[in-house]
Amino acid sequence: MSLNEVVTPARSLSAELQDRTGEVVTLQGWLHHFRRLSNVSFLLLRDRTGVAQIVIDDPDTAERLSMLKHESVLTVNGTVTAEPQAPGGVEIKQPTVTVLSEALEEPPIELYKPTIRAQLPTLLDYAPVTLRHPRRRAYFRLTHAALIGYRSVLVDAGFTEIQTPKLVAAATEGGANVFPLDYFGRRAFLAQSPQLYKQMMVGVFERVFEVGPVFRAEPHDTTRHLNEYVSLDMEMGFIRDHRDVMQMLRNIVAGMFAAMSSQCRPELDLLQVEIPPVPEQIPSLHFADALRMIGAATGEDLSGEQDLAPAHEAWLGEWAKREHQSEFVYVTGFPTQKRAFYTHPEPDRPEYSNSFDLLFRGLELATGGQRLHRYDDYIGALEGRGMDPEPFQGYLQAFKFGMPPHGGFGMGLERVIARVVGATNIRDTTLFPRDINRLTP
Amino acid sequence: MSLNEVVTPARSLSAELQDRTGEVVTLQGWLHHFRRLSNVSFLLLRDRTGVAQIVIDDPDTAERLSMLKHESVLTVNGTVTAEPQAPGGVEIKQPTVTVLSEALEEPPIELYKPTIRAQLPTLLDYAPVTLRHPRRRAYFRLTHAALIGYRSVLVDAGFTEIQTPKLVAAATEGGANVFPLDYFGRRAFLAQSPQLYKQMMVGVFERVFEVGPVFRAEPHDTTRHLNEYVSLDMEMGFIRDHRDVMQMLRNIVAGMFAAMSSQCRPELDLLQVEIPPVPEQIPSLHFADALRMIGAATGEDLSGEQDLAPAHEAWLGEWAKREHQSEFVYVTGFPTQKRAFYTHPEPDRPEYSNSFDLLFRGLELATGGQRLHRYDDYIGALEGRGMDPEPFQGYLQAFKFGMPPHGGFGMGLERVIARVVGATNIRDTTLFPRDINRLTP
Repeated sequence: MSLNEVVTPARSLSAELQDRTGEVVTLQGWLHHFRRLSNVSFLLLRDRTGVAQIVIDDPDTAERLSMLKHESVLTVNGTVTAEPQAPGGVEIKQPTVTVLSEALEEPPIELYKPTIRAQLPTLLDYAPVTLRHPRRRAYFRLTHAALIGYRSVLVDAGFTEIQTPKLVAAATEGGANVFPLDYFGRRAFLAQSPQLYKQMMVGVFERVFEVGPVFRAEPHDTTRHLNEYVSLDMEMGFIRDHRDVMQMLRNIVAGMFAAMSSQCRPELDLLQVEIPPVPEQIPSLHFADALRMIGAATGEDLSGEQDLAPAHEAWLGEWAKREHQSEFVYVTGFPTQKRAFYTHPEPDRPEYSNSFDLLFRGLELATGGQRLHRYDDYIGALEGRGMDPEPFQGYLQAFKFGMPPHGGFGMGLERVIARVVGATNIRDTTLFPRDINRLTP
Repeated sequence: MSLNEVVTPARSLSAELQDRTGEVVTLQGWLHHFRRLSNVSFLLLRDRTGVAQIVIDDPDTAERLSMLKHESVLTVNGTVTAEPQAPGGVEIKQPTVTVLSEALEEPPIELYKPTIRAQLPTLLDYAPVTLRHPRRRAYFRLTHAALIGYRSVLVDAGFTEIQTPKLVAAATEGGANVFPLDYFGRRAFLAQSPQLYKQMMVGVFERVFEVGPVFRAEPHDTTRHLNEYVSLDMEMGFIRDHRDVMQMLRNIVAGMFAAMSSQCRPELDLLQVEIPPVPEQIPSLHFADALRMIGAATGEDLSGEQDLAPAHEAWLGEWAKREHQSEFVYVTGFPTQKRAFYTHPEPDRPEYSNSFDLLFRGLELATGGQRLHRYDDYIGALEGRGMDPEPFQGYLQAFKFGMPPHGGFGMGLERVIARVVGATNIRDTTLFPRDINRLTP
């Protein structure tokens, strides 16, 4: 019997070296690149915090390193020495280099080059290694920081984090585009969203949020859609109407952006991405007014339109930028019939709804609204749409037992990051995207 | 066009009333209970922070309230008044009560009674309303706090949070018990764990963690297993061996327990649950030594045993408590053949492995270990088990391009909470459990 004493070897990280001039340190990381010159050579060693430069004087070591493939894993002992021209102002001298794990092949892309020339299919086919490129990696460090900001705002506002089932008996939106599967002899579906569950949980916790996968069996192959993505969802009770949700969403996006700004300075610099300010009050336009404005400006006849086309969203993005110096704009009041059955109509104009989309740089970032909260309203809404209430019994029971006015939103995590970094394809900001053609790696 | 000004009504929460004696406040919540006495009545109003007592003098209001069903949603305006005998030392007087949303039926259980007498199937069939019981709700506030603690330790230790796909092309462990589904004409599976993906991501971020659903098609109906659960996973590179993972897991559990202690005092008091201390060094036993000790103590012949039976785990729990005053004990060195193909053998005794289970109160809480990190070792391990490497190509490529020694663990969130609160059935600590018989609500 032995207690689990662990003497972790005192590994230093590349980002810590600046303060340790004169010390002998142990670094561990990947052979990012090796540059052999006539009388001196440079080893660039990459770890999770950056890249360290190691000066190789010894010809045998240089010879050995020149035989190794990129991405071999090394341990380096050496002395931290000030060198203004080295990255971070320091380099490692008098090194001893040990191979911890040798790479067997050269990577399919040159990970040490600042730009990536490979096409997306190559990047995705070899994701386990191409994600090691500092630019690719930076996207997912931003994702990590955005999640910290997301949860932080919600936890501070009294929300409870929940995990709801992804195996469900009824399609959330009652529509097609669900993945069915056999569940011990019964038919089950993969959840299209946690919508029904997060609403039920308003009765328990008032304010809830979830971060989890959702599944859409849409057979489209576009740059904006995936068949599996991570949904940021929240739902809150005791609202006046959808405007309370919009204000909370504004605070959440501000928290996400602030976390990215404060925690990902090196990544943002590398990507040359600016995190824009989120205005205290995001400009907001009713759907009917938006159509009228766009029609007046462009000469299009938009009467009878039931949704915004991408060109219209782009126009509104320009408008918000021009008139309100805002990268964000809310559109509210979408036609009730175009939104899901649980959408709350406007009290005075039931053909419009207490719903909203948040546009960022002219593209949809989040969608939400106030929900119905009375049982009879649900039965009416389902029947009015020709939907059978039976598969929704588990959900509908919540509304028999007292539910406050409530609302919430859903927001695709990969899409938020794509918008922020300016990626044109959502696959760029997804570790292992799933689409109609891709199920591996 | 209007900006989205929101004037949220100044709602007070029940837990804030102690500091507001003399003020007029607005409360909103559920009719938890109404007690009508001969000359005065008491309304108990429940919100997300607790229960407020409201004194009803007015006979008309009392009459109206007596007609309402439990769980109706109310707004109450009134004056906060000190009253030593009331819960929290305050009550609301001179109230105005408005019905915000009326309950249509009486709940299937009495939510205001301190104990729950209903059986589990009733609780689960009516989960949207039975979860409102303060005892049920408390389990999931503990879950919420545990997650905060989990992420906090990992983020501070330089881990990156990742989201990996749940639709996969190969069964993680290569075994049966996966849910297959049709994915646009191809066969896909629901991920049994993020194991393969988190390992690949060690090459990118060194240290990663994930919180997400996993799916097991096991056709068993036990109190310890579910077909869908939330897995807390992590994986870390540049370890010496499994002991570095064990030390990190110790810190993580300590962080989870500390968060529950500090953030859930009222819930822990309600449940009469004590959060035990986590020792700095958790006692640790090798599998072979554990068998020998148990055999010597019980007289059983355990030679040739390849795993621990539940009774043996219980014995070890007692032993750790008695000999080390610890509710926790590690068992290491499980036979290599009983662990998954990616398990790293002990360097000097390859029939045993660099693996561990963490037992808490004699029950398994987490399982983990060091993994193989060389491509050739994977090919050898798969072939040695008669498994085809082909479906694992996407995963195996990571090991061709340089992977450091690494390891990690997986831990079922619902199981952790069940152990802490002493629930005997894991369904008790799952919002909407999925088992062989249950797919709703």
